[in-house]
Amino acid sequence: MKVYLNGAIMDEGEALIPASDRGVLFGDGIFETVRAYSGKPFRMDRHLERLHAGCRDLRLSGVPPEKEIGNAIGELYRLNVVSGDAYVRITLTGGLFDGNRSLQRSNPPNVYIMVKPFEGYPHEWYERGMRVVVSGVRTNEGSPLSRIKSNNYLDNLMAKQEAKDRGADDAVMLNSSGFLTEGSSSNLFLVRRGKVATPGVECGLLPGVTREAVMELCEEYGVTCETEFLTLDDLLQADEAFFSVSTGEIVPIAEVEGSPIGFRCPGPITIRLSAAYRALVKKELFL
Amino acid sequence: MKVYLNGAIMDEGEALIPASDRGVLFGDGIFETVRAYSGKPFRMDRHLERLHAGCRDLRLSGVPPEKEIGNAIGELYRLNVVSGDAYVRITLTGGLFDGNRSLQRSNPPNVYIMVKPFEGYPHEWYERGMRVVVSGVRTNEGSPLSRIKSNNYLDNLMAKQEAKDRGADDAVMLNSSGFLTEGSSSNLFLVRRGKVATPGVECGLLPGVTREAVMELCEEYGVTCETEFLTLDDLLQADEAFFSVSTGEIVPIAEVEGSPIGFRCPGPITIRLSAAYRALVKKELFL
Repeated sequence: MKVYLNGAIMDEGEALIPASDRGVLFGDGIFETVRAYSGKPFRMDRHLERLHAGCRDLRLSGVPPEKEIGNAIGELYRLNVVSGDAYVRITLTGGLFDGNRSLQRSNPPNVYIMVKPFEGYPHEWYERGMRVVVSGVRTNEGSPLSRIKSNNYLDNLMAKQEAKDRGADDAVMLNSSGFLTEGSSSNLFLVRRGKVATPGVECGLLPGVTREAVMELCEEYGVTCETEFLTLDDLLQADEAFFSVSTGEIVPIAEVEGSPIGFRCPGPITIRLSAAYRALVKKELFL
Repeated sequence: MKVYLNGAIMDEGEALIPASDRGVLFGDGIFETVRAYSGKPFRMDRHLERLHAGCRDLRLSGVPPEKEIGNAIGELYRLNVVSGDAYVRITLTGGLFDGNRSLQRSNPPNVYIMVKPFEGYPHEWYERGMRVVVSGVRTNEGSPLSRIKSNNYLDNLMAKQEAKDRGADDAVMLNSSGFLTEGSSSNLFLVRRGKVATPGVECGLLPGVTREAVMELCEEYGVTCETEFLTLDDLLQADEAFFSVSTGEIVPIAEVEGSPIGFRCPGPITIRLSAAYRALVKKELFL
């Protein structure tokens, strides 16, 4: 496997960074994960806009020009993947620690790009829907980090582990006030009486690029989609529910804590939005 | 500067870890900072107990034996510091990422130890007390991470930055329910009518080794010390307030958001506990 590190393509085993990097010591860094369809990243511009916005919030600098990132992804795709879809991760760290325990940094970031074959989610998640539990780990709407895809990602890994431990496929997370926020690495949507709803950013969640595309598709198809404060009861009583995630697209939710959601899974609006999303990807990427 | 990485002593510039380490990608790791007085780490046993407890919670394994850590610190002290006090940081990461986005890991950790001369806090912080603001970043008592010294440390760095931006020395953080928790890298104590109080761990804070020592000293000196739910009003109306931190020991708080705390700073109980803490260090380390 080849990777990109600070301007050069190299073997993954040669891509080394200082143990004293702020990314190692404090999780000081930011990332994006993108799905590249037949080598073409979907909505790369939106992912890069989010990356830049997060960098502003964290006062990180040093994102390479869009062209350089695009070239690196293209070259890594040819070297590592060749055909089919790819999983892309772009990571930027805070650089060598200079003793300053704040957001002030004096050294350049490490910029790391991985492109691997996209393995896909299990087919049954799309066919029968995901079995979901409610995580005991709350998201923290009281921190700007809840809205930034930072390398401080342990809460999400813990939520996913909790789901595995309980024999489930994934977990939904509540915020500190008890409102629904997101999945362990996805956004959450509910369908109720033909209307779509998703928790608002102010609830403490990472607004995904796929979430945004789903909201656009709803508008295009004349389906109401609103950001709301939603509760676990709203989810349990929904007609349909699904996750949106850049890699896995739209993934239906079959049950939450053992309670089935709606009468069948995937439900009609989930099916319609999934198909619309795939059509959107094909259209935008000329596939 | 020499450092320890995975069993070997080497130049800091040679201490490299894979960019694909989970510590880089997710902040998946844990650390301890310890002050070594004339080369002798204070309460190393308690720091290691906390490290092991955090590793259990995060399902991390691979902490080296106590003797190996002690030898590494001793050797790095001789090489980097020679005389005087030292700042010690022990870091353990989640190891090479294998694609598993949970707490399941298949590769050994990277274990990294730094020992540097301890620079000390500014004298005026001890003489006139710290000027403190209330951070807009809340700690998250709804996540186990709030009680683990994990490498997901950006919230703390943001709180410190906020203090700098506002011309203050440090920040106190509230939890999501609005209760006092801790400083950006320290624990918080109040003194009211001769009694000492500190927020309880259930508020979402990292219980420090120095915090524990202060509680022991209170007991020894017959001063009541209780863990409580404390509010910002409690702090503003306190007779004295101070931070406890392994490196800086006991640091008085002069004012919060421009309001002076008590009638003079440092107050009498803060002075007494500071002296008692230094005596405790000398006694335990045979200095």
